[in-house]
Parts: sequence; structure tokens; C-alpha cells
Amino acid sequence: MSDEKKIDRRAFIVEGSAAVVGVTVAGGARAGAQPAKPAKPSSFSSPAGSVIPYSREELMRRAPARVFGGRALGEIAFPLGGIGTGTVSLGGRGELRDWEIFNRPNKGRSLPFTFVALWARQPGKAPVVQVVEAPLQPPFRGSHGYAREGAQGLPRFRGATFTGAYPFAEVAFEDADLPVQVGLTAFNPMIPLEVDDSSLPVAIFRYSLTNRSASPVDLALAFSILNPIGYDGHSPLGGNRFAGFGQNVTRVRREASIVGLDLTSQKYEPDDILAGSMALVTTHPEVSARPAWEEGAWWDSFQKWFDEYAADGTFDQDGSAGPSADGVSQHATLAPRFSLAPGESKAIVFLLAWHFPLRENYWNREPEVRGRKLRNDYGARFKDAWEVARHAAANLERLEQGTRSFRRALEEGSLPAAVLDAVSSQMSIIRTNTCMLLEGQRFFAFEGTSDDSGCCPLNCTHVWNYEQALAHLYPSLERSMRRTDFLDNLRPDGSMAFRTLVPTGRALWQFKPAADGQMGCVLKLYREWQLSGDEAFLRELWPHAKRALEYAWLHWDADRDGVMEGEQHNTYDIEFYGPNTMMGTLYLGALLAGERMARAVGEEAAAAEYRRVFESGRAKLDAELWRDGYYVQRVPDPSAVKVQEVEQKESWHASSVDRGSIKYQYGEGCLSDQLLGQWLATVVGLGHVLPPGHVRETLQSIYRHNFRHDFFDHPNTQRLYALNDEKGLVLCSWPRGHRPELPFVYSDEVWTGIEYQVAAHLIYEGLVAEGLAVTKAVRDRYDGERRNPWNEVECGSHYARALASWSLLTALAGYSYSAPEQRLTFAPRIAPEAFASFFTTGGGWGVFSQRADRGKTSAALDLRWGALELRRFGFGGTTAKGGRIAATVNGSPLSARLDEETIAFEQAVRLKAGDRLEVEISNK
Amino acid sequence: MSDEKKIDRRAFIVEGSAAVVGVTVAGGARAGAQPAKPAKPSSFSSPAGSVIPYSREELMRRAPARVFGGRALGEIAFPLGGIGTGTVSLGGRGELRDWEIFNRPNKGRSLPFTFVALWARQPGKAPVVQVVEAPLQPPFRGSHGYAREGAQGLPRFRGATFTGAYPFAEVAFEDADLPVQVGLTAFNPMIPLEVDDSSLPVAIFRYSLTNRSASPVDLALAFSILNPIGYDGHSPLGGNRFAGFGQNVTRVRREASIVGLDLTSQKYEPDDILAGSMALVTTHPEVSARPAWEEGAWWDSFQKWFDEYAADGTFDQDGSAGPSADGVSQHATLAPRFSLAPGESKAIVFLLAWHFPLRENYWNREPEVRGRKLRNDYGARFKDAWEVARHAAANLERLEQGTRSFRRALEEGSLPAAVLDAVSSQMSIIRTNTCMLLEGQRFFAFEGTSDDSGCCPLNCTHVWNYEQALAHLYPSLERSMRRTDFLDNLRPDGSMAFRTLVPTGRALWQFKPAADGQMGCVLKLYREWQLSGDEAFLRELWPHAKRALEYAWLHWDADRDGVMEGEQHNTYDIEFYGPNTMMGTLYLGALLAGERMARAVGEEAAAAEYRRVFESGRAKLDAELWRDGYYVQRVPDPSAVKVQEVEQKESWHASSVDRGSIKYQYGEGCLSDQLLGQWLATVVGLGHVLPPGHVRETLQSIYRHNFRHDFFDHPNTQRLYALNDEKGLVLCSWPRGHRPELPFVYSDEVWTGIEYQVAAHLIYEGLVAEGLAVTKAVRDRYDGERRNPWNEVECGSHYARALASWSLLTALAGYSYSAPEQRLTFAPRIAPEAFASFFTTGGGWGVFSQRADRGKTSAALDLRWGALELRRFGFGGTTAKGGRIAATVNGSPLSARLDEETIAFEQAVRLKAGDRLEVEISNK
Repeated sequence: MSDEKKIDRRAFIVEGSAAVVGVTVAGGARAGAQPAKPAKPSSFSSPAGSVIPYSREELMRRAPARVFGGRALGEIAFPLGGIGTGTVSLGGRGELRDWEIFNRPNKGRSLPFTFVALWARQPGKAPVVQVVEAPLQPPFRGSHGYAREGAQGLPRFRGATFTGAYPFAEVAFEDADLPVQVGLTAFNPMIPLEVDDSSLPVAIFRYSLTNRSASPVDLALAFSILNPIGYDGHSPLGGNRFAGFGQNVTRVRREASIVGLDLTSQKYEPDDILAGSMALVTTHPEVSARPAWEEGAWWDSFQKWFDEYAADGTFDQDGSAGPSADGVSQHATLAPRFSLAPGESKAIVFLLAWHFPLRENYWNREPEVRGRKLRNDYGARFKDAWEVARHAAANLERLEQGTRSFRRALEEGSLPAAVLDAVSSQMSIIRTNTCMLLEGQRFFAFEGTSDDSGCCPLNCTHVWNYEQALAHLYPSLERSMRRTDFLDNLRPDGSMAFRTLVPTGRALWQFKPAADGQMGCVLKLYREWQLSGDEAFLRELWPHAKRALEYAWLHWDADRDGVMEGEQHNTYDIEFYGPNTMMGTLYLGALLAGERMARAVGEEAAAAEYRRVFESGRAKLDAELWRDGYYVQRVPDPSAVKVQEVEQKESWHASSVDRGSIKYQYGEGCLSDQLLGQWLATVVGLGHVLPPGHVRETLQSIYRHNFRHDFFDHPNTQRLYALNDEKGLVLCSWPRGHRPELPFVYSDEVWTGIEYQVAAHLIYEGLVAEGLAVTKAVRDRYDGERRNPWNEVECGSHYARALASWSLLTALAGYSYSAPEQRLTFAPRIAPEAFASFFTTGGGWGVFSQRADRGKTSAALDLRWGALELRRFGFGGTTAKGGRIAATVNGSPLSARLDEETIAFEQAVRLKAGDRLEVEISNK
Repeated sequence: MSDEKKIDRRAFIVEGSAAVVGVTVAGGARAGAQPAKPAKPSSFSSPAGSVIPYSREELMRRAPARVFGGRALGEIAFPLGGIGTGTVSLGGRGELRDWEIFNRPNKGRSLPFTFVALWARQPGKAPVVQVVEAPLQPPFRGSHGYAREGAQGLPRFRGATFTGAYPFAEVAFEDADLPVQVGLTAFNPMIPLEVDDSSLPVAIFRYSLTNRSASPVDLALAFSILNPIGYDGHSPLGGNRFAGFGQNVTRVRREASIVGLDLTSQKYEPDDILAGSMALVTTHPEVSARPAWEEGAWWDSFQKWFDEYAADGTFDQDGSAGPSADGVSQHATLAPRFSLAPGESKAIVFLLAWHFPLRENYWNREPEVRGRKLRNDYGARFKDAWEVARHAAANLERLEQGTRSFRRALEEGSLPAAVLDAVSSQMSIIRTNTCMLLEGQRFFAFEGTSDDSGCCPLNCTHVWNYEQALAHLYPSLERSMRRTDFLDNLRPDGSMAFRTLVPTGRALWQFKPAADGQMGCVLKLYREWQLSGDEAFLRELWPHAKRALEYAWLHWDADRDGVMEGEQHNTYDIEFYGPNTMMGTLYLGALLAGERMARAVGEEAAAAEYRRVFESGRAKLDAELWRDGYYVQRVPDPSAVKVQEVEQKESWHASSVDRGSIKYQYGEGCLSDQLLGQWLATVVGLGHVLPPGHVRETLQSIYRHNFRHDFFDHPNTQRLYALNDEKGLVLCSWPRGHRPELPFVYSDEVWTGIEYQVAAHLIYEGLVAEGLAVTKAVRDRYDGERRNPWNEVECGSHYARALASWSLLTALAGYSYSAPEQRLTFAPRIAPEAFASFFTTGGGWGVFSQRADRGKTSAALDLRWGALELRRFGFGGTTAKGGRIAATVNGSPLSARLDEETIAFEQAVRLKAGDRLEVEISNK
């Protein structure tokens, strides 16, 4: 609390990367006061003159995590699972929901009678049984009464608060009548760079109980679960009957360090798509169990379960149940039992592991791939779920420490609450069914997910253009995507299939190439090279990337003037015609990246040509499209347009050229994505591709025209992502009129991925308040009551574009890293006098911090994981012209000097986890 | 307001039918004060000593209708439709939802892009388009954004309040920025006794607009609708595509008094189950229209519609659209246009009529009936929907006046708000898909409805035992049910198929008979005879009723001692064994009714035997089952039980006798239904079948033990109808312990039908506060946020058992009517000094009122509809021993005297609609 307060008092908004404008945060001056409640929303004028519809305090407020209560618990579904494992979600009330562990999405479906119930007995009192969940919330709809298969009919706690600090969720349950206080921490291990540790098919639940009464209390915690082996992962389930069930076996297993339920089925051969197992174990040794609830008509089974548990908190069955009859499975219960003396606390850990090694390609219609079986990476690493549980239990301390270290590092940073929330909550996308990790750690991903299927398949280049989190957290997986892009998806003419068919190598997706996606891939290859320093990787992929880049000269920029005029299919699922800066800046960025990569592999002639085309395009785009504050599209005459034939009809595609006219363009509009390529070039460290002044003015215009303070009067015939009093950035507007009769098909929508892209870009260009306002608007829409904070939707849930939120962190920190040059620099855009930020490189991660105080600036790198080798280190103070420099590693001095606005070390500094590099620059 | 206040000040709770205990309603004394806000909930002790968890003011508050706002709009779906026509519901926000006009339930489904949008233009300002609905409410769930096919993306009003006064719904829309005030009244004609007028397949919408600005305003109101002919009534619909669509034709028709859209299809022959038509018409002459929206890719169609409307509020297409291509239909729009001078008001009436004459028996599996086509009564009366619309428009004034007269008569009564709400809201069940009206005005009904099918079929005798509203509002339809019971469903041995297969006459449902249902039918036959005075009807059915009654002597009461001991299948879907008062009182009531009916047809010997068995049973039941405050069940030894073989397995049925033990009984429990037969005997005018003191004490016990003040600590493994802080009456409890391990399968549930039965019975026995508390608890659970006030659910939506609520009205009024005896009496149980109540007889309806003031009592009958012939008239004052009597009809004196606690008229008084009978008794 006091720490946070201290930081609050020092919080500043930085206007531009050089000029520090001190704007004290409102309320920060009252030293020693209680943390102020969020002030009544107000607005202020940003240094750049924008209207910001929040108070400064609201924008700059810091909080280590987001806390929810009451109605805001309703939509929460916090995903628990690793990379490519699927997830089960923890609901805001503490319940389990959305069982998506069966290799596909499954929104809204739960395993019947799978819940945790507390049993408590105080001396001389009747025992009580309570489901460890907050109360149910209206509406209580249902033609036959409210749903009962989540044990809704049993007593529950009176309330709860949910704290979401991805990858950790905490629930504090409240019930004044109970002698014990109960809390839950749930997570799945997530350690940046460590793919194995971050891709375990397990959900870990730690229930903490404290006896707050004056008497000893006998307690039990019964975790009941359906043995769901044979479930197809998306059909409705009721009770314990399903066509796929049968020969289910549930066994109570007791080992030295774990005891639990081993849930299997004898019905399926190992190569069956439904083959799999689950394990529910605890590390608590004293456990009673029931491998199968008694059968019976009506509600007999559940009633008998309740009566048995209520009586004395134990179950008197052990051993094994099953194999079950065809179409039937068992419910089972695992019930750790213990006592607490007054004031005593105990933690009970459950590990719920699953193992469904095979998935089927159900999403493509191409006969070469449809129905093919694909093996999950975890399926190759583990024999069954019990082995997963055993591994996770044995490594629990290490895994949790690594995960906590990561979260702590994130929280140590100076990110305002909404940014921390946007960055950390949306990392979860990597670990939902949007993504898969196949054998050999090959990473594939949908754009997002429909309720019970992925949508749309796979590795869509233009959607994944926006993503930055995977590249920075798990760069080896990001590189596997580049290998797929360039080694699998390039056609002989250099055009790229912008969706991937798996298994790869059998067929390519047949559709016209996407100009934005294809150019983006070149930029992203540059990023992967810069983050990894892997020259072999670059040399392997470069010849293909070169073909992809130069494909532009066939169709899009046939006159090689650096401006795309041809038919440009893009992320709006339509084609743009004529020059526009959205494709244009991606093309320019790709040319710049191409120049650098060509030079790195010794292709100087190619590098020079890319530079020539770049220079031509940069000048021409700006000259032709800049129009009073932002860039427009020049839509050609319909007769001049050449429409590429589509080899494969897609249901979502409609030609933009219709009966001799061109629709679905933006023309004179102010497009939020108009500087997409500029943003990406900035993120990957390529700098400006258009004149900096125009870039900044354009971003101001986008904020002014496209950021809506409410949606009451925004007629939208398209899809709906913002409503009523919500705020958000629309994809396009026409402030000067001339809106086309039918503009591009998503123009009136609000996409979080684009909001993050624009917000980060605003921050990069010093328009910090604007960027924070856009970010806060997004997260306010995902408030737990309106929508799930851990599921930003666009064309599907857990939509990959939202992974752009990572660039908010890199923008605020002014982070830039080049592994080939062993250079790491920061240029904080808030609170330079006391700034900190999490950072990653290809080989390590940690916390950067800097302080500026009375003529002295100092900075430090705390490497928390991995290793890092540096020749240059830059931060806020290194823009100075000189000064006395003191550099140390773990206190031992290093020889260093100021050069090109960085600290240049005489010898490369090698840091390993736990090392601290410090640099101090004093005034001359 | 002031009227209501006056009545409030006079409100009294009457303890017992004779003793008037003056308990002034809290807050009533402050004359001239503003209507008090509902006081903070409190509790008080009833005259009988019960704890009532409300304040007296809350219980006795009167209100003409129930008003909803904010979150309480969310679950509202107010059904608009006639008897046997299906419904479309008006949502709380003013939207149309749950399109159930296609001969089956269809919860949660709407016709895409079917909505009403206002266009308004003030001089010198840009026109605005607003959907005439309140704002959308969270959550805004959806993997591809929030739903858009209800035009959710267009601007809406800022708020609304919804007033539900079934059959009228009113919505007052709020938007301070608009120059006009907009309100909506929606209804379907409902006039008691008038079946034809109450079974029109139409929904009537009257939008009232007032210009509250200082300038003239140009206005249009566009009602858009999908032509859905060919829809199967329960599949998901998106856009205008569905397999059943094709050859759809939408035509703009203009006639002298109506103009509108005629929605048809040429795809189906008249005998096809999908054949049908719809019509959307207005009585406003100045109308523009578009019979088909333009087609297009993406959202082009809706965008173009919006642009056309937004431009100047008109559509420039007329004539006809279609026939459409296979699998496709049209959206069409009807847009009345008008102007309002400052201060001016106008009402625009839309009539939405439908005509789907055939329905298919999809619900039975018996081959004799499955798939058979059934013709709706309205299908035989009207050629098509246009004819329905024309008829409704031509008769609109008459139909609305009759309906308003009915509603007004209900509101004139002294019913406390919760009772008026319970009585009037649940009448709607008769006019939902729970019920059907087939050719020849034969009435059939499910118990209720699942989301897309009826559940369960049909005329279930034991569920419909509780129903009283149809019997009193549409007695001819109730008689058609008795004809089905006795003429179609009786087997040779006298047992009754307690469900009906339609078409009738082909096969009987094969399952063991229901003891409660079968006895109830005898009581109900007595009721129909008493209400109608139709002796021919009695003589036709009596021989069958006699067989049904005496069937009891074969199995249930083989020793003819007046107590059922045998296997008693019943409304809990299981069998009771051994004596119990639930079946026992129904049996006693049936014997009493049998005695009276036998005597009426001259069968004195039978009458005497029924009386003998009755007297034996009455004494024995009381002696054997009365146990310290209520009646218990005597469960026999399992070895003594004879289980009747089930000829047909039903998925919902499980034998109560299981491995040598009997489960699913209640034994020592306090059963809420234990006096079910006593309640029914009281309602139909047969008086007490058990000792009055024990009846009253039992009811007190039921209230004390089974009425829960909250459900926080009520473990329930069964179905859920009450949760958290809600109040409700459970079906059973075991206050003295001895709860069976597996009691009957619904014992822990809360059913509104039983709550109403018990509440009315409490009131009949003078436990008025208790009865009102139970009633208020029900209606508080259906508050618009938790559940839909117009859909009380049990085993299905719109569950028929809730029609028991009508008996609250008869109980409070102490209403009793015998057509054969031409006797109508009242014994008000609240506010006898100023009481009024709606009443019906078989031939008329109106308002009864009574006043008691300083030694003078007076009463009046205002007949508002039909005719009534009376020889005796009783009310609160007629229990006096004598006095000066003055009787008049429309002011003309009549000769009358006091006799047997009624006013006996020398000559039968014949009243017709509009007549007023007045009687005054002065002290001697």
C-alpha cells in the first residue's frame, strides 16, 4: 500500500520522449492519506490538446491486480491451462466452467456435478456442508427451474471477491457464519521462455483455510468430478450419460507424495481421437474418497452423496470403480480431511491434470487435411494424466516460484493499472484454444474461437501481424510460425497462403494473398532475428522472405515505386484498391526490414534496391495521401481495377467490385489502422517510415475522430463490440464527410486489437494520455459484468489480435533490443524519475528500472531468468552529452563509456539469472 | 392515487370469516401524505401467531398494476396472443421476443430484423432514427460480438418503464433528447366467457406519440418484419435464410380501413403443416412501405435499409416482392408517416396477425397419433392472416372495450397488489402454447412447455386439478376438458388415462391411473355443473363419472372404508402407499360431489352409499393420521404393498418399491399438499371434509414449517425454483425428524401452483396474512430480473398448476356460486367495510361490492357482461339475524327477505350487462 502510494506521488505523464512535463497526479499530494477511491469520472485536456474522458488519477492509477465483486463476478471465466493444452476456467464465483480441455473450445458447458464442497464441524454443533462458491446470480431462467447440475441447490458462501492477476487467480470467499476463512489461488505455470514448463495440461488449486473461531474445527474439502473420458468436448452433457462414455474406470491411487483419482476409460485405443485420461490429485495425505457415486433413479445419486458427506465429512469407499456400462460414466469424489486449532491455517492443494494427446482437424474442408490426427506436444511428453499430475506435483515449488517471479516482475513495473491489466490478461490468449502446440513444439493458432470450434484456421498472417506477446515471451514458438509462413506456405510465384493447412506439407490453402499479412511476415522475420540473434535461422528463411517481399512487385506495386496500387486483400476480409497507408506502411516497413536482412546475409544489391523503392514509396505516399491531418486512400476508377480470380470460394468473402463500382473502401476516411505498418516498424525497432510530424499528427487525428466517448448515437449495422455508455475506438470515421455508401465491412466496429495497436502507437509518439485512455476504455468494457476480462472477442473469443497489448509495455518502456548487436535500450514515457518495467530478450527476462534525481540518473537491469549478453545499454539518462559513469554487475565495477546515446561496455557483459547490472551517470 | 390512498386507510385484515379484527395498515393514518414508499421489509406476528416476514403495509398495499424498470426489464416476456393461437412476447425493453406463433414454444428465439424504429425530424435539424426500445442490458456476451439481428447496433431510447396489467402491457419510453414522448400499449383481446373474441391470432400495438417540443415534428414509425412463412417454429434463424423458406411473397395491400404487408408463401399446399400467412397492418392511412429489403453481401441489406429510412423517413417501394428463391425470404417494412404540431398527440396502431392453421402431433410416440395433423379452431374460422387482421381492425373498438372492462373490473376489486398480480398475470397461461384450442373449440393443454416443445402432453388430470382460472373465465372450454376426461379417457374398468392422446378416439395412453387426478375430475365435474347449471351436461357425463369414482373401490379403497390404502400414483410422478390425506381428501371430496350429483340425477342409493363411505373415511382419516398439528402418511410394510404393473414405461417414472423397501414417501412429514382435496372441496362449494379445527391448525402448521424466509441454508438436490434470499413454500418438511432417506422426489422443491393452493386455503380458513405472505413471496421471485413475471415455471414454462392463483380471488371474496340453485354469495375476508371483487358466473361477470357502516351493510352486483339470474344473494351482512332490507335493480325495488344467511328474492332477479343490483340491511 505505502509503496504504491509512494510511486503514485511520483507519477508523471511524459510528453514526448525528451521533454519531461511534470503533471502531478491529482490527489497524490495528500501524504499519508488512505488510498483514494477512484474519483468521479471527469475529463481533462491532454498536453496535445485532446479531450481525455477520464481524470488523470483514473488514467495513472496503479494496482497490482484487478479485483471484482458482486455482479462483476458473473461473466468472469479465468482460463487455467498451458500453451496448447486447452483450459478449464475458474468462474468469478469460484466455480469451474467452460471445460475446454478436450482439444476444442466449449464455451458455456460444464462437467455435471464437478465442484468443491467444504464440510465443517465445530464441537457441539451440527456439521455444515457448503459449496465453495459465491452465491448464484440472477437471472434464474429455466423452463424446469434453474440449472441444478452444478450443485446449485446446495448452500454456498455468502459472497466472494475475485482477484485476477494472470496467470494467478485468487478468490476470497466470505461467510460470517462459518468458523473458517477460505481462500483459493488457482493457476497454471507460466514462465517466459520456458515452453515445457508453460505448457502443462494441469490446473492447480490451492485452498487456504484459517480457523477464526475459538474452538477447534474438523474440516474436509470434497472435490467431486465426472469421469469424462469419451466426451467429445462440445456436446451438451447431463448427469453421467453420454454416447461416448463406457468402460470408464475411476481408481483411487495413493503414492508417496500424491493421492487422488485416476480417471480413465478402457473403451478407446491409444490412437483413437477420444483416447485420454484425467487425474485429480492432492498433496494432502489424509484423504477419503469415493471412486463412484451410488447409482439411482431421480436424484438418488446426488442425495446419497450429500447425506454421506454431510454425516461426517468422509467417504468410505476406496479402490476402483468401473468399467462402466456403455454410455455411462462415474462421478467421483476426493476429500482431504483435517482439523484446525483456533487461529491455525492450512493449505490444501489439488492438481487437476488431463491428457488428450490427439486432436483432429475438424476445421478444414480440404480433403488432404480434413480428419487428420494431430499430436499435441504434451501428448508426446507424457504417458497419461497421472504422469502429468505427478510431474506437476513434484515440480510444484519450482514451477510456482518461476511463475510468481514473472508476475512479480510485471507488477514491479510502473504500468498504470489498465495497461498492466491489458498486457497480462491478454497473454492468456496464448494459452487458450485459440492456439495449439503440436509435437515438436510447432505452434499453430486460429484467429480466435467460436463457442465450440476454432475460428478461423490457421496462423492467419494478417491477424497475427498485430500480436507481440508470443514473440517476446516465447520467441522459439514465434519462430516456428515464421518457419511455417516461409517454408510451408509460399507458392512458386512468391505469394503466401495466408492461412495454414495442417498437417503442413500436404496442401496449401487456395485463396488470393493478403498484402498486409505478407508484408507483415517480412517485418516479423526481422523481429524474430533481432530478438534471437539466430543467424542460421535468418539465413535459412531469408531466401523465402525475399521472394515473399518481391512478390509485391508482381501485383501490388507493379511499377516498383514503393506504393501499392493493385488489389490488396487484407485483414478486413475485403480488398482495398489504390494507394493507402495501411498497406503502404507495412510495405515500407518490409522494405526497410528487407534491406537490413539482405545486408546481414551479404546481399548488398538487393538491400540497395529495397532502400531505393523504400525512399520512393515513403516520399510518394506522404505526398499523395496526406490530407489535412491524416492519410486518406486514393480509390481508383473502377475501370482501372484488376480483380484477381479467387481459386477457392470462401463463405465470408465478397468481391469489392460489384456491378462496375467499387465498394468496401474507406476513401476520405480517417482509418484507425492507417499507420499499422508504422506501428509495427516502430515496435520491431525500424523507426519512422513516414515523416515523424505527420505520424504524430495522424495519431492525434485518429484519437480525435475515432475514439468515441459513448455509443448512444452511433448507428452501426455491423457487429457490436461497444454499446451504450461504453467508450471505444471505431475502425474508421469520415470527419470530412464523403463516407462511401458501403464502406469496408467492419468500418463501424470496435476491435480491441486495433485499439491496442493505436494506443501503443500513441504512447510511442508521446501521446501518452490518449494511449492510456484508449486502453482504459477497452478494459472498462471487459468489466466482468458486461464481458469476461479474460476473453476479448472480435471474430471469435480469445482473439489473437488483442495480443497487440504487449506493445503497450514496450511503448511505455521505450524498449528496444537487438540480439545481433547485443544492444538493449529503454526510453520510459512515464515517470522517468522512478520508472520500472518488465522486459524480455530472446534468452532472459527481468526488470529494468531507472531513477532520475538531482542531476543523477541511474538505471539497473535485474535479470530474473535465463541469460543476457550486452554490449550496449541505453536508458533515459544516456541521451545526456556526458558525465561521470559508474557501471557495476552485482557491485563489481565495469569499464563503460557513453556512445551513440547508450552505455557501451568495453567487454560484453554476461548476465545470468539473479545478476544485477547498475549504471549511474552523474552531472559533469 | 388519492382513491388508492383512501382504500389503504380502510384496509383491514379479517381474522376468520365472521370476526372482524381491525388492524390498521401501517402508514395509513397519515392522511394527505404522499403515497408512502414501500417500507423497509419488516415482520410481524399474525393474529394466529405466525411470523409474517413482511410489513403489514407491504402485504396489504394495493396497486392497479405492476411497474418494472432498469434490470427488472431483462427477463420480461409478456405474451401476446389468444387462446390456442400461440404468442409473440413483448420484452421489457419494448422489443419483440420468443416468437411462439408457429404452433409450438420457441423460447429465446426471435425473428431477425423484426423491430420498430422511429424517424423524427425537427425543422433545421438532421433527422434521427431510433429503435423504439430501451437500452440493451449486460452481459454483452458473444464470440463474435453482441447479437446484432435485433438491430442492436442502432440507437435506442435511453430508458423505459414497463407496466404489466395482463392482458395489457404498457411501455413508457424515455429519451430527453427527443422532441416526442413515445408510449406503447400492447394486448390481445380477452373477454371472459367470449371464446371467439379471446382466441384471435393477433397482437395489437398502439404507439402513442406526443410532440413536447416547440416546433412541428415530422415523424415515421417503421415496423420491419421478416416474412417467416416456411419457418418450422423452433430452429435457429439468421438473416433471411432457412431451409423452409422459398417462394415467399410479400405484398403491400391497401384497403379502405387498413393498409399493410401481406406475408405469404407459394411453397406450401393448404394441408401442409407449414402452410400459413401473416399480416402486419396499420389503421393509419399515410404509409410508405418496402415489401423487400435490398439484397446484398455482408451487411449491405441492413445498411441500405437504414440509409433509406434515415434520409427522409419513407420507403419508395410498393407493390409486391417475391416469390423468393428457395431457402430465402424477404424482410419488409411498413412505415406510417405523420407530423405533429407542438403539443399534438397521435396514436399509430399496428395489428400483427398470423394464421398457421395446422399443427402436428410431434409430442406423442404412439403410432396411432404421432404425426397427425390437428386443426386450430382459429384455422377453421379464418381463411388467412389478412382476414384475421381485417376482422380485428374492424372490431378493434369493441374488442378493446370488452378487454378494458374486464381489466378495470379486476382492478376495482380490493385485492392486495400481489394477489391481483398473481391472479391476472397467470391467466396468461391459458393463452400460451401450454394450451391449444382445436376445431370445434375443444380445449387441450400440456402441463407447461419446454423451450421448444410442449411438456408434458395432454390434459394431465392431476396437474389440471389445481387450475381454477379457465373454469371461471371460460367455463365452456373447461367443460370440453371434462368431456375428454370422461367420454374419451375412461377405460372399461373405470380407470382413467390421465393423459390424453390427440386426435382423441384412436388410442388411450397406457399407464397406471392417477388417484389424485381421477378423484379430482369428479370434483371438477361437480364444479362445471354448479357454474353452468347445465343439467344435460351433467346427465351425459355422470354415468362415466360414477364409474371413475367407484374405480376407487377396485384398487385404492378395496375395503370401501373411505380411506385409500392401495398404490396411489399421483402428481409427484411416483406412488404413495398407505393412507394419506392428500389422496384422502380428494377422495372424500369426490364422494361428497358424487353424492350431490347422484342425488341430482335421481340415484338416491348411490348417493347414500357415497355418503356412507364418506362419513367412514372422514372419521377414519382424522383418527388415524392426525398427529400433533398436521396429518401424516401411514406408510405400510413393504411386504403388504401391491405394485400395479406399468403397461408402458415412461422415462420419468421409477418404481417407489425398490429392492424390498419403499422410497419416495413422506411419512411423518408436513406435506404442503396434505389438504389438497379439502382446498378443492372448499373452492367448489362442498365445505369441510375434515374437522374444521384440524384443517385450520394443519394450515397453520404448513405455513410454519414449510414457508421459508430464505433459502441460504436449504440443501436441495432436486430442482431449483427458489434461491438465496428468496422466500417460498417447500413441498414438504419433517419438523419432527424422521425424514426418509429418499423422500418423494420433489419434496424439497417450491412450486407456485402449490403455493397458490395453500395460500388460498389459508385465506379461506381466515389465515389471511399467512396466505398473502405466501402469495407475495411467489411474485417477488418473479420480479423481471430473476424470472419473467408472466412465466411461472415448474415442469415447464407457463405451467398450468399456477392457474390455482384464481382461487386467491375466490378465497378473499368468499365467493360461492350455484347455477342450479341460482345462488351467489360472498364472504369477504379482508376489508369487509369497503370491499369489492370481480366475479364470474357461467353466464356473466361483473363486480361485487359491499360496505359496512354504522349498523348498516349494503352490497351491490354490477353486471358488466352477459346475464345472470338469481334467487339468492349473500354477502357479509346477510349473516345478521334480521334487519330492514331494501333491494333494488337499477333503482327499482324488489321484494326480498333474509333466509339461510342469504337474501332470498321472491322472484328470480334477471340481470343483464349494465344492470346493478343493490341490497341494504339496516339494524332493527
